[in-house]
Amino acid sequence: MQTLNMLLETALDDSLVIAGRRFTSRLMTGTGKYRTFEEMRQSIAASECEIVTVAVRRVQTQAPGHEGLADALDWSKIWMLPNTAGCQTADEAIRVARLGREMAKLLGQEDNNFVKLEVIPDAKYLLPDPIGTLEAAEQLVKEGFAVLPYINADPILAKRLEEAGCATVMPLGSPIGSGQGIKNAANIQIIIENATIPVVVDAGIGTPSEAAQAMEMGADALLINTAIAQAANAPAMARAMHLAHQAGRLAYQSGRIPVKAYASASSPLTGTITS
Amino acid sequence: MQTLNMLLETALDDSLVIAGRRFTSRLMTGTGKYRTFEEMRQSIAASECEIVTVAVRRVQTQAPGHEGLADALDWSKIWMLPNTAGCQTADEAIRVARLGREMAKLLGQEDNNFVKLEVIPDAKYLLPDPIGTLEAAEQLVKEGFAVLPYINADPILAKRLEEAGCATVMPLGSPIGSGQGIKNAANIQIIIENATIPVVVDAGIGTPSEAAQAMEMGADALLINTAIAQAANAPAMARAMHLAHQAGRLAYQSGRIPVKAYASASSPLTGTITS
Amino acid sequence: MQTLNMLLETALDDSLVIAGRRFTSRLMTGTGKYRTFEEMRQSIAASECEIVTVAVRRVQTQAPGHEGLADALDWSKIWMLPNTAGCQTADEAIRVARLGREMAKLLGQEDNNFVKLEVIPDAKYLLPDPIGTLEAAEQLVKEGFAVLPYINADPILAKRLEEAGCATVMPLGSPIGSGQGIKNAANIQIIIENATIPVVVDAGIGTPSEAAQAMEMGADALLINTAIAQAANAPAMARAMHLAHQAGRLAYQSGRIPVKAYASASSPLTGTITS
Amino acid sequence: MQTLNMLLETALDDSLVIAGRRFTSRLMTGTGKYRTFEEMRQSIAASECEIVTVAVRRVQTQAPGHEGLADALDWSKIWMLPNTAGCQTADEAIRVARLGREMAKLLGQEDNNFVKLEVIPDAKYLLPDPIGTLEAAEQLVKEGFAVLPYINADPILAKRLEEAGCATVMPLGSPIGSGQGIKNAANIQIIIENATIPVVVDAGIGTPSEAAQAMEMGADALLINTAIAQAANAPAMARAMHLAHQAGRLAYQSGRIPVKAYASASSPLTGTITS
Repeated sequence: MQTLNMLLETALDDSLVIAGRRFTSRLMTGTGKYRTFEEMRQSIAASECEIVTVAVRRVQTQAPGHEGLADALDWSKIWMLPNTAGCQTADEAIRVARLGREMAKLLGQEDNNFVKLEVIPDAKYLLPDPIGTLEAAEQLVKEGFAVLPYINADPILAKRLEEAGCATVMPLGSPIGSGQGIKNAANIQIIIENATIPVVVDAGIGTPSEAAQAMEMGADALLINTAIAQAANAPAMARAMHLAHQAGRLAYQSGRIPVKAYASASSPLTGTITS
Repeated sequence: MQTLNMLLETALDDSLVIAGRRFTSRLMTGTGKYRTFEEMRQSIAASECEIVTVAVRRVQTQAPGHEGLADALDWSKIWMLPNTAGCQTADEAIRVARLGREMAKLLGQEDNNFVKLEVIPDAKYLLPDPIGTLEAAEQLVKEGFAVLPYINADPILAKRLEEAGCATVMPLGSPIGSGQGIKNAANIQIIIENATIPVVVDAGIGTPSEAAQAMEMGADALLINTAIAQAANAPAMARAMHLAHQAGRLAYQSGRIPVKAYASASSPLTGTITS
Repeated sequence: MQTLNMLLETALDDSLVIAGRRFTSRLMTGTGKYRTFEEMRQSIAASECEIVTVAVRRVQTQAPGHEGLADALDWSKIWMLPNTAGCQTADEAIRVARLGREMAKLLGQEDNNFVKLEVIPDAKYLLPDPIGTLEAAEQLVKEGFAVLPYINADPILAKRLEEAGCATVMPLGSPIGSGQGIKNAANIQIIIENATIPVVVDAGIGTPSEAAQAMEMGADALLINTAIAQAANAPAMARAMHLAHQAGRLAYQSGRIPVKAYASASSPLTGTITS
Repeated sequence: MQTLNMLLETALDDSLVIAGRRFTSRLMTGTGKYRTFEEMRQSIAASECEIVTVAVRRVQTQAPGHEGLADALDWSKIWMLPNTAGCQTADEAIRVARLGREMAKLLGQEDNNFVKLEVIPDAKYLLPDPIGTLEAAEQLVKEGFAVLPYINADPILAKRLEEAGCATVMPLGSPIGSGQGIKNAANIQIIIENATIPVVVDAGIGTPSEAAQAMEMGADALLINTAIAQAANAPAMARAMHLAHQAGRLAYQSGRIPVKAYASASSPLTGTITS
């Protein structure tokens, strides 16, 4: 029987590998929507995240809240995941991905070729374009990027992106920032069953229970931003998400009990009262 | 702004008080259904539980798996919660509660007057009898017990038990051992809103995500037994439940984001591409 | 094989029997909350209901919308179900039930001994008191009433009311008028499995799909009032509820396909293309 | 106020228009998986469907259950919807669509240019390929087909198919034949909100309540095959689906009550007891 020590050792071993790079945490977060840099720094620390996504366009244009972002975090400890938020077409996304690679180099991450690919023509739901995303992914893979595409939870699209050489797929649970939770669970489950690359559930998670649920389903990692940054107490929620994603991962490895239609006594009724 | 240190201090302060007694952990577990005593001990350690429930009748009758149970745990560190499992009527439960008090005394817990009250006439679903439970609770309160009644999630019954002087109410999420999760969420929410005594969600939780969900709803504590004891790796699942219940509590205190019908960009699209 | 004609004949045969009285429709409605008597009459006609519940206290006191209610419906065609809405204790409910019987007699229903028993101490959620309800039911059964008690979805309470001689049980799906749908499905399912008297799902249904769902679960009948009376077009919604409750009943009798984890082709792929 | 007669007249007016062709029923069905032709005929009659889909490849190859299918139904009354089931690529689907048009002509539907476009590379979940589907749709629209593409519930893909000139979009609720119901409700809702062509929910519906739910969400039509053909009593289930889809449509037009967190009395408590 496995002892508690063995259990903890196993947990230490359970790393996430993306494009050959090894990470201990399976929780990623972002830099958007925090009220202050200080709150952002505390939240990222509390989350124990190693991967943090940054909107290249916003840094480039020094959009509000992004002036000085490059200096606000210690990039020797955090792996930057540049994203192409704000791009409506494959072409735009490809250009912004290249800018992102330059940005990572300037911050000292010479070998960082990661890009979170977002091709989002829709301003209301911020849902990604499957056609444009596949097109951009194919080009960026050719250019040597490790591509992490943000997609609707479409299992066939996920498989095609994997075949195109993407490093992960990032299906959405529900629209970005909506906090609706995992609305596409059936499709995400199919994606997980069929993927040989990591599946990162991205967008829609609002609570730790939803974070745990995604990990229990077998997701390899999560990206959570709004639910942390906009919580009343952002660092505390970051901590809660860290704990919950660990709990979900551990449960996935621990073999949950089957769901039964009927009850099953914790204390079987074999005894008789003798008083 | 609250710093991470302040956050951790607050967390330390956040204790559960039942009948005047203070507990750090909000997760309770049981002793039933483990494969071995060793696995039980490891799981209870991994769960960091302080309250462990024991079926008085099974100890009394030395039912299988209960011989030597009294010696298997260190009762100087764990608070025993004797339960009346196996009792079908108020009278039976009252008698078994008294036995439980004796048992606690024998194990060195002189001032332990806790009893988890179960009056369960139904062998298939193991659902409690509201009438018999209220009747037994009234009597046991008179006799000085701290009564923690196991009930169906009926808000009016919960209120009547509170008025009768119970120390907590323990509504069930779904039938014992079924692992169906929180099926009565709407009623449990109403119970939580109206209670001035701790609400402990008991029975039905199968996964850490469900544990977190109950705590996010504002439950004061959880009792989880089968989902831990019968998991493929019981100590690892115990740890997962510990992490998840903490995550849910922290989220409850941290103010989750509202659920929105539409998306809300993590990286607002105010920038323009300049490449 | 059953022909369509045989099917329709079977449907004609499928009557609801409560306390020895036979009804063709399995949908009941009420008289509260309509904007006008004319809309009420049209809605009741469109619903094809045979049983309509009336709040005895409101008629007695000529509360707004209840003046003239007795004359507004044709009681030679509709079976009145007097209810004890507004009663907070068993005693009040017993007295109002007796008044209801008188009221039915005055309207020409000499042999109508039905009463919808509501004992509701709670003004916010309008949830029933299990203890008071059982107490009043026992008394009213002794006095010869056909008692239809409104209850929280508690299977043990339902069984005790059946044993006390009630004519039906009426578990709530969710709080009255909330339109939340069937929130207590797991418990209602257990009640249905165990009952030998009709189970009438009462309160909470907001849409035809929820009405159909309850009937598919095997409920014997439904009581729907607010979802009809307060719909933008009440008579049209009444018709929709009629159709949906029939659909659900028919589906219950027709044997639904099992839910499968995987797909199963409608048009199996045994052919090959020959073009 | 609208009278019942006015209501029924409105209902008669509420026709479904696809590619300029008008249909009274909003329920479509198929010919696959029936146990006998007789049962199929009775079920289609009971469903009151006007559009029935047929797998072109299976007719072409005289696959089991498809010999004589052409003669088994009265095609002067039923509009044939040829489908491309069994096609894994855009090219295959285009060829089969052309065969389908010939088949419709042979059966006397000279002007029938409808095709249900299925491009399904996956044998386990039978999920459609978004890229291949768009490609085939663009070609078939050029060739003058009224294209009804079967798609995963991806709002951006749906919009692109609409822009490509498709006659409808047919998002799936859950995998074909799985009977899991509407698992992609959030995405289907977004598709409905944004479409200017009819949205037909296709695949996954297992029960009348799920059929009603899709119509209440505002779907313009449904395609249901397995849930009818494989029900224990297929004609009765067909009837149930007909009733339920009507109920859902009527409810969509009737303005449902809002969902409330709290109760709202059907019989407000303004009266006082006077006994």
